[in-house]
Amino acid sequence: MSEIAQWLKQQQKLLDRELSKRLPRANARPATIHQAMRYSVFAGGKRIRPILCLAAAEACGGDPKLALAPACALEVLHTYSLVHDDLPCMDDDGLRRGKPTVHKAFDEASAVLSGDALLTRAFEILGNLEAPAEKVVALVKALALASGESGMIGGQVLDITAEKSPQDEASITRLQNLKTGALIRFAVWSGAFLAGANSEDQDKLVAYGDDLGLLFQITDDILDEIGDAEKVGKAVNKDKNLGKATFVSILGLEGARDK
Amino acid sequence: MSEIAQWLKQQQKLLDRELSKRLPRANARPATIHQAMRYSVFAGGKRIRPILCLAAAEACGGDPKLALAPACALEVLHTYSLVHDDLPCMDDDGLRRGKPTVHKAFDEASAVLSGDALLTRAFEILGNLEAPAEKVVALVKALALASGESGMIGGQVLDITAEKSPQDEASITRLQNLKTGALIRFAVWSGAFLAGANSEDQDKLVAYGDDLGLLFQITDDILDEIGDAEKVGKAVNKDKNLGKATFVSILGLEGARDK
Repeated sequence: MSEIAQWLKQQQKLLDRELSKRLPRANARPATIHQAMRYSVFAGGKRIRPILCLAAAEACGGDPKLALAPACALEVLHTYSLVHDDLPCMDDDGLRRGKPTVHKAFDEASAVLSGDALLTRAFEILGNLEAPAEKVVALVKALALASGESGMIGGQVLDITAEKSPQDEASITRLQNLKTGALIRFAVWSGAFLAGANSEDQDKLVAYGDDLGLLFQITDDILDEIGDAEKVGKAVNKDKNLGKATFVSILGLEGARDK
Repeated sequence: MSEIAQWLKQQQKLLDRELSKRLPRANARPATIHQAMRYSVFAGGKRIRPILCLAAAEACGGDPKLALAPACALEVLHTYSLVHDDLPCMDDDGLRRGKPTVHKAFDEASAVLSGDALLTRAFEILGNLEAPAEKVVALVKALALASGESGMIGGQVLDITAEKSPQDEASITRLQNLKTGALIRFAVWSGAFLAGANSEDQDKLVAYGDDLGLLFQITDDILDEIGDAEKVGKAVNKDKNLGKATFVSILGLEGARDK
């Protein structure tokens, strides 16, 4: 295993432990919702966003442990967005991270409610961060902005609309900038902010997060086109079959690779 | 109009203005979600929770304006819970506050996403409260607890489960204590807390909130049994037809009235 792969594995283990501490026990009553919450969070995510958050804190000279609360809040919030995006009235997905989606493994009501509970829990986790209260408030506001209708949710709305109307590269970039980019920007910014980085370094990391978010989405679009469902862990050709606008549908496979 | 009815009307007007300021404009892009968010919030709610919050602040000698942020956050959060509860996979309701529910007036995806956005916005509104940061953090944590899976969402889970299993008075009281009670407790507590009430007065108001929440739910159950859909503004005999456990189904109409 390469050095970076080993490091990622370590970070994932650390985050899984920390996430487990910050989520309700599976046997707490009422049990179904707690089981559904843990099922989706521990379905084998790569933990990219929280790892970026911890790495940003470290890159800015801080102790990455300081950033565990926003890192976990981010992952919990990201998970809720997947659970709701997979619902029959949205993307209608049966497979996620190689496992049945929450509304398949449980039922639709449990998917809606456990998603709501994860979103709520993300703010609880952030509220419990041991840091000066001014910093906690800044993080709460930033996470709400990044994940709300002017951020991630706005991107999902554009994504649904994009199935019905023609798109160009500018509009698909805007869509992804919100849908994927907003949380990745929060990830690197929050780590840097908690490590006490100055605003110039914060800006640099946010710009890096922007580029990374774009790279991430283009790769996802390419995998939808040419990936193997088993390796990717979710249905492929899905966006294609839905007629969704993606970087591949607009730029072509080679164009997307070049970009 | 009686004095209290006039006062309630004034409070509702004030809250509608304040809610409007704290929600995105209806023509902001992407427009559908912003329209859906405003549609549900301005569908004619009685604003009971936020009025209790302002009144608690005033009762504790504070300026009720101090409590406008938690009051608006509460109402926005309460509205999201109604939008999601009305979904076909939950209570499957077509009418709310006398108007078509969000998934009828828009579509299911808009109902899920605008509910998510309202929930997120509630924490943003609270984060923007102009008060000492320690107080803001305490409110964020308390709202997350009151509305999450150990509060309001937990109550909704029990409510769905209650359709399938026999209930007694203790379990229905516990259900309502979470589903309706948790937010009403937060309403009176947050107003008192921001007004600087001591913990004894906070406790007294919370106990009052508990009783009021119970009264509120028993009345709702009685109206489901004997109310007129047009006056009540939503479908009646709904809980009854779903075979839901209510105070009326367990105690009988007279028993519920006595309680």
